Amino acid sequence: MRLPRMLTPRVTVRAHCDLPCGVYDPAQARIEAESVKAICEKYQASEDPEYRTRALIIKEERSELVKHHLWVLWTDYFKPPHFEKYPHLHQLFNEATKLAGASGAKGSTDVDVAEQLLGKIDEISKIFWETKQG
Amino acid sequence: MRLPRMLTPRVTVRAHCDLPCGVYDPAQARIEAESVKAICEKYQASEDPEYRTRALIIKEERSELVKHHLWVLWTDYFKPPHFEKYPHLHQLFNEATKLAGASGAKGSTDVDVAEQLLGKIDEISKIFWETKQG
Amino acid sequence: MRLPRMLTPRVTVRAHCDLPCGVYDPAQARIEAESVKAICEKYQASEDPEYRTRALIIKEERSELVKHHLWVLWTDYFKPPHFEKYPHLHQLFNEATKLAGASGAKGSTDVDVAEQLLGKIDEISKIFWETKQG
Amino acid sequence: MRLPRMLTPRVTVRAHCDLPCGVYDPAQARIEAESVKAICEKYQASEDPEYRTRALIIKEERSELVKHHLWVLWTDYFKPPHFEKYPHLHQLFNEATKLAGASGAKGSTDVDVAEQLLGKIDEISKIFWETKQG
Amino acid sequence: MRLPRMLTPRVTVRAHCDLPCGVYDPAQARIEAESVKAICEKYQASEDPEYRTRALIIKEERSELVKHHLWVLWTDYFKPPHFEKYPHLHQLFNEATKLAGASGAKGSTDVDVAEQLLGKIDEISKIFWETKQG
Amino acid sequence: MRLPRMLTPRVTVRAHCDLPCGVYDPAQARIEAESVKAICEKYQASEDPEYRTRALIIKEERSELVKHHLWVLWTDYFKPPHFEKYPHLHQLFNEATKLAGASGAKGSTDVDVAEQLLGKIDEISKIFWETKQG
Repeated sequence: MRLPRMLTPRVTVRAHCDLPCGVYDPAQARIEAESVKAICEKYQASEDPEYRTRALIIKEERSELVKHHLWVLWTDYFKPPHFEKYPHLHQLFNEATKLAGASGAKGSTDVDVAEQLLGKIDEISKIFWETKQG
Repeated sequence: MRLPRMLTPRVTVRAHCDLPCGVYDPAQARIEAESVKAICEKYQASEDPEYRTRALIIKEERSELVKHHLWVLWTDYFKPPHFEKYPHLHQLFNEATKLAGASGAKGSTDVDVAEQLLGKIDEISKIFWETKQG
Repeated sequence: MRLPRMLTPRVTVRAHCDLPCGVYDPAQARIEAESVKAICEKYQASEDPEYRTRALIIKEERSELVKHHLWVLWTDYFKPPHFEKYPHLHQLFNEATKLAGASGAKGSTDVDVAEQLLGKIDEISKIFWETKQG
Repeated sequence: MRLPRMLTPRVTVRAHCDLPCGVYDPAQARIEAESVKAICEKYQASEDPEYRTRALIIKEERSELVKHHLWVLWTDYFKPPHFEKYPHLHQLFNEATKLAGASGAKGSTDVDVAEQLLGKIDEISKIFWETKQG
Repeated sequence: MRLPRMLTPRVTVRAHCDLPCGVYDPAQARIEAESVKAICEKYQASEDPEYRTRALIIKEERSELVKHHLWVLWTDYFKPPHFEKYPHLHQLFNEATKLAGASGAKGSTDVDVAEQLLGKIDEISKIFWETKQG
Repeated sequence: MRLPRMLTPRVTVRAHCDLPCGVYDPAQARIEAESVKAICEKYQASEDPEYRTRALIIKEERSELVKHHLWVLWTDYFKPPHFEKYPHLHQLFNEATKLAGASGAKGSTDVDVAEQLLGKIDEISKIFWETKQG
């Protein structure tokens, strides 16, 4: 099940934002990270070298998209008062983006690594939605 | 409010998919289309020519992303049985992507046009989640 | 041999189009699909693992370009009267883009698959040029 | 009219090439340059500031694609014997890509400039097809 | 004048790095930021609306590249011991990337804003080269 | 060691340029080529097939960036008087970009090939900085 669109906090989203766009959603990073996890699962389940090479190519792209969406949240959405209220937020984003990079999901086909990345994104997502309530 | 992640139908999502990635979500198109709508609102509310030019530049990109995410759903997610069950689905996607293009959101700063685009994406999203239940 | 440029129907092309650009040509998709086919042939003829990996990387990009060029034709060039006159056109584009994707040229190094993709693009091309005559 | 696909010199094309792809065609640059010309014509014919801004955004992208396709031909297709046989070929490509840049089609909305660019691409195209005959 | 290549600390650079690439240089961000500054200067010096629109289009791209290159340094080059030694480094990167975004160089044509951005990049660059000496 | 920023010839750079941006630096191509070389070294030192595949993916991208940065210098920075003064400059750029392509760094994991590419970029860089002195 999924909340109908009219109940999602879209008005609130835009109310906090002064950019030309002003619409942020950690779902963008999460969807790409779920792709990364699914790719790892399928990579592990396959022995076809062509398929595995394609999986690595696509995982590289999806992981890069995870990093990009997280960077955008960190730079464009979160403001100084947020970083004051959540003093570990910088480190959380740094760890999350590292987990999407060479020392994480890019450099590994381990499903656990992708799970850790999803866990970090959940932590960020929780803070994100708290700041929307404020 | 937003459903906590553990309640979202992620397992189901992947269970229907045989691609390297296998994770689809119409939210990707919707988020970009909400950006397009917010940009139109801010464009209309501003008289600063630099700001308005930037709004047009960014709206062009966001509209292109709407098209891309919809095209991916149409080609990669939906299969022949879906098109049999929903005979207007081809036309719906064609209209939605046209509404994201030059004859729609790219070529207009009218908030109503962006609303129409969001409406089409909602129709697609409804069908998408129905096929997930099946 | 190739028709000299002065004989190609460029004026007609633009006359049917009301977009900022207005120049469409299925040759864009065809050229990328010919690349895909050539890559498959060279992949099959080589046993060098580095070369084969590079072939897969480049085939992934070229196939994506095929999809993109076909999507642009389907959404931006073809109009409702075309879809009325050619009722199978939606399905033809859907099959062609699927043939450029994971279930086709992206997911295979079989030259036959690339040939099928070229065949679909020829069908689209034939309809495209018929609509230019109209 | 357009030559049916079976008559185009595709076999010859690939026979001259030892790259993973091996399919080159100056049509790629020409199609984008025709877009640039069409954009200039429509820009001159319009007084709508939003439309004109969009035209400039899209012209910038299309001109960049012209440059890219020409650069690929110059570096990847043409070989030392070609440059020996056509001693002005370096300069021709340099002038053509400059004409697609800031001192040409990017920096101008003059239809004549786009025509000059198309003229240079025709010169390149003529040499390209001569080298295919050889 | 510029130091000859043989004197630049390339060996040291790679020695600190365990990624597939391992070559980082804040010059990448600085060069794009100098472009942004030059664009602002030329924008201010021109009254041609076409030129000014093009300047805004290109400034948007160059600013995005500044952000990207800084994000890469923050996530991929700097490691936990660096953040311990330079406790303001997170905030410095966050401010620098914000200065390249909508509230900075993207949203402004003020040469001073571009100068501030270059100043932040210089601060980052100084720390970067200090960590190379360590 | 690295020259402090205030000593680098930035003013001179911009003084020679009439484009919207006007900032060029062969360091952009050199940094990417150093990445290519580092990737080759690490590729040769590893026997992990996943790591080697990732190295090939990233080398493909970095080599493409080398080509792009060189093409920009050749088309956008260098002007007819430069080509008169340095008659081999066209050929030098053509060889350098070929060395970044399929017959060079893209098609090889040989560190020597990457070194040759860096050597060509050094030759270009030397000429570039001479023209800045002029």
